[in-house]
Amino acid sequence: AEVKKIAVIAGDGIGPEVVAEAEKVLKRTEEVFGLRFELEHGLFGGIAIDQKGTPLPQETLEICQKADAVLLGAVGGPKWDNNSAALRPETGLLGIRKALGLFSNIRPATVFDCLKDASTLKPEVLDGTDLIVVRELTGGIYFGEKFRRETENGTEAVDTCVYNVKEIERIARQGFEIAMTRSKRLASVDKANVLETSRLWRETVIKLHAEYPEVELEHILVDNCAMQLLRRPSSFDVIVTENMFGDILSDEAAMLTGSIGMLSSASLGEGAFGLYEPVHGSAPDIAGQGISNPIATILSVALMFRLTFGYHKEAEAIERAVKEVLDAGHRTGDIAVDKSKAIGTTAMGDLIVAAI
Amino acid sequence: AEVKKIAVIAGDGIGPEVVAEAEKVLKRTEEVFGLRFELEHGLFGGIAIDQKGTPLPQETLEICQKADAVLLGAVGGPKWDNNSAALRPETGLLGIRKALGLFSNIRPATVFDCLKDASTLKPEVLDGTDLIVVRELTGGIYFGEKFRRETENGTEAVDTCVYNVKEIERIARQGFEIAMTRSKRLASVDKANVLETSRLWRETVIKLHAEYPEVELEHILVDNCAMQLLRRPSSFDVIVTENMFGDILSDEAAMLTGSIGMLSSASLGEGAFGLYEPVHGSAPDIAGQGISNPIATILSVALMFRLTFGYHKEAEAIERAVKEVLDAGHRTGDIAVDKSKAIGTTAMGDLIVAAI
Ligand SMILES: CC(C)[C@H](C(=O)O)[C@@H](O)C(=O)O
Ligand SMILES: CC(C)[C@H](C(=O)O)[C@@H](O)C(=O)O
Repeated sequence: AEVKKIAVIAGDGIGPEVVAEAEKVLKRTEEVFGLRFELEHGLFGGIAIDQKGTPLPQETLEICQKADAVLLGAVGGPKWDNNSAALRPETGLLGIRKALGLFSNIRPATVFDCLKDASTLKPEVLDGTDLIVVRELTGGIYFGEKFRRETENGTEAVDTCVYNVKEIERIARQGFEIAMTRSKRLASVDKANVLETSRLWRETVIKLHAEYPEVELEHILVDNCAMQLLRRPSSFDVIVTENMFGDILSDEAAMLTGSIGMLSSASLGEGAFGLYEPVHGSAPDIAGQGISNPIATILSVALMFRLTFGYHKEAEAIERAVKEVLDAGHRTGDIAVDKSKAIGTTAMGDLIVAAI
Repeated sequence: AEVKKIAVIAGDGIGPEVVAEAEKVLKRTEEVFGLRFELEHGLFGGIAIDQKGTPLPQETLEICQKADAVLLGAVGGPKWDNNSAALRPETGLLGIRKALGLFSNIRPATVFDCLKDASTLKPEVLDGTDLIVVRELTGGIYFGEKFRRETENGTEAVDTCVYNVKEIERIARQGFEIAMTRSKRLASVDKANVLETSRLWRETVIKLHAEYPEVELEHILVDNCAMQLLRRPSSFDVIVTENMFGDILSDEAAMLTGSIGMLSSASLGEGAFGLYEPVHGSAPDIAGQGISNPIATILSVALMFRLTFGYHKEAEAIERAVKEVLDAGHRTGDIAVDKSKAIGTTAMGDLIVAAI
């Protein structure tokens, strides 16, 4: 097979542990399926601040730019929480999204049957829940002008939320395209009764709908969506929304599945290139103990196979291996009912590798 | 007793029906406790657009300004959804908040024991949930400059989110004060890892904390809060946050209680004056059928008694009457398990009036 270049960015906290298991999975797919990967490792986040004085060193960015895909662990931790903006891990995350043009964040919220009980929602409410949040990732209030100024009422802070038609169109198109591959239902979330950016958002989505007449389109206000996700999660198929609303709603949707330790995500740009990472964070409280759950990161590899490389049967093999190991009753601490029987990070990784 | 002036704004949809029952409750408390109210009715929302050409007519605003408190039903409906901003019911709502200086929105999310089953959350997760969201109501992205401009990427829309120290201080103080009357735990919600307004928010809350050393203060990012509300709702006491985050989180919190048809809210300014309204909307789909639930509006009267008039025992009498009627098994359709036994709006109102 053609050699695929993957930039591997382990990051902070449990990042390195879970990424190590995903690397074992990559190696295994080379052996079993004859795939060929070239991995290049880069410093990113808190560890890059400590060693290089910046969360996103130029050489890390170049490794990513030269790669076909990026595998990211997690970044951040209390150590850097009180740093100024330029020296915070999150700034690296925003920087890499922008620099790589990753305007679309794909966040599936899937319920793993064997983990259903872990949800705080009633099982009958959760039944059939399988949705994807498509979040705009390089615009909106995240990237608009920010500043402070002095006023007679003390210091004043300003953030600016900006969207143009082109930015809205390309993310809405993603939403329609993904809906077309699924149940053809798209919920576009905005706050059109208050925000001008939302009114432009809605107008643009409505116009684009003409190109996707088969898709059933619903407009839903963000506050109502936060409610309906709780009341009728299984009624959603694809949700498309802007950056800030997507940040909140994708986390809410992930949490209601009860499977947050298992969820992966993709950040995509115009072409096949993508950045893949688990939904969970760097979990500094359990880092270094070898007890973290590597499954979300391993499933991020499967997502990379599907969306960037088109390795569908290989992706399926990884997903099937994960299911097999779970069905056999193996659990890391975060998803174990009986914590005393929990296995560690590497044991879980080994089992999945063996099952591929 | 002293005559208290109440501006009554029934609004649209089920607004008039539920407000009519609340008025019966007011009359009953006059008889039983010797209170005295002078009610003045005003047009507001969609009906005001239809009859006066504006959602917030000057005379309605004046009625409110002369009153000691405002009782609001609900506004909005599909009829006005496609109007331009100036002719939308929501614009009236934003206008009245600003004009009356109602910078603080108090949204209790209480679980009614007899309605616990209505929640989509597992009962054991919900146990002990009793929280209040304190939402800033006259600032942030709701009221900042909004406009469009042409760019090479098509039309661009801009919203501006602005907060100054004084605005943050007064709402944060509300949060601390309310926490002091409860379990003394305050969660301040922001997105300080991304937004400048959130960083100023956090700094200001931290400074004010010095005046309330007894309060246990937690800072939580908005995306994490959306998750934790689902995972551990009972661990929250008072949540204080800015306008847009508060809009989303207060609705999420309300929905998880399963009691959304029962929840009331208060919007307050500097003094005792306040605007009281049910959390639910105008429910155009069931308007005019006499089947809506008047309890949230009736409980809004109780909240008005407590927060604006200091009529504590009278508030308690209303709350006790509601509980009695529910405990006796009476239900409107929205909260009935056996829909065939559901009673109507006026029947529910009459029962509560009789129980006071
Ligand atoms: C860390 C933070 C800047 C980031 C975001 O808000 O985008 C995170 O919450 C996420 O969703 O990836
Ligand atoms: C109708 C709308 C403008 C309003 C808001 O967003 O404030 C509503 O959702 C609310 O919470 O009272």
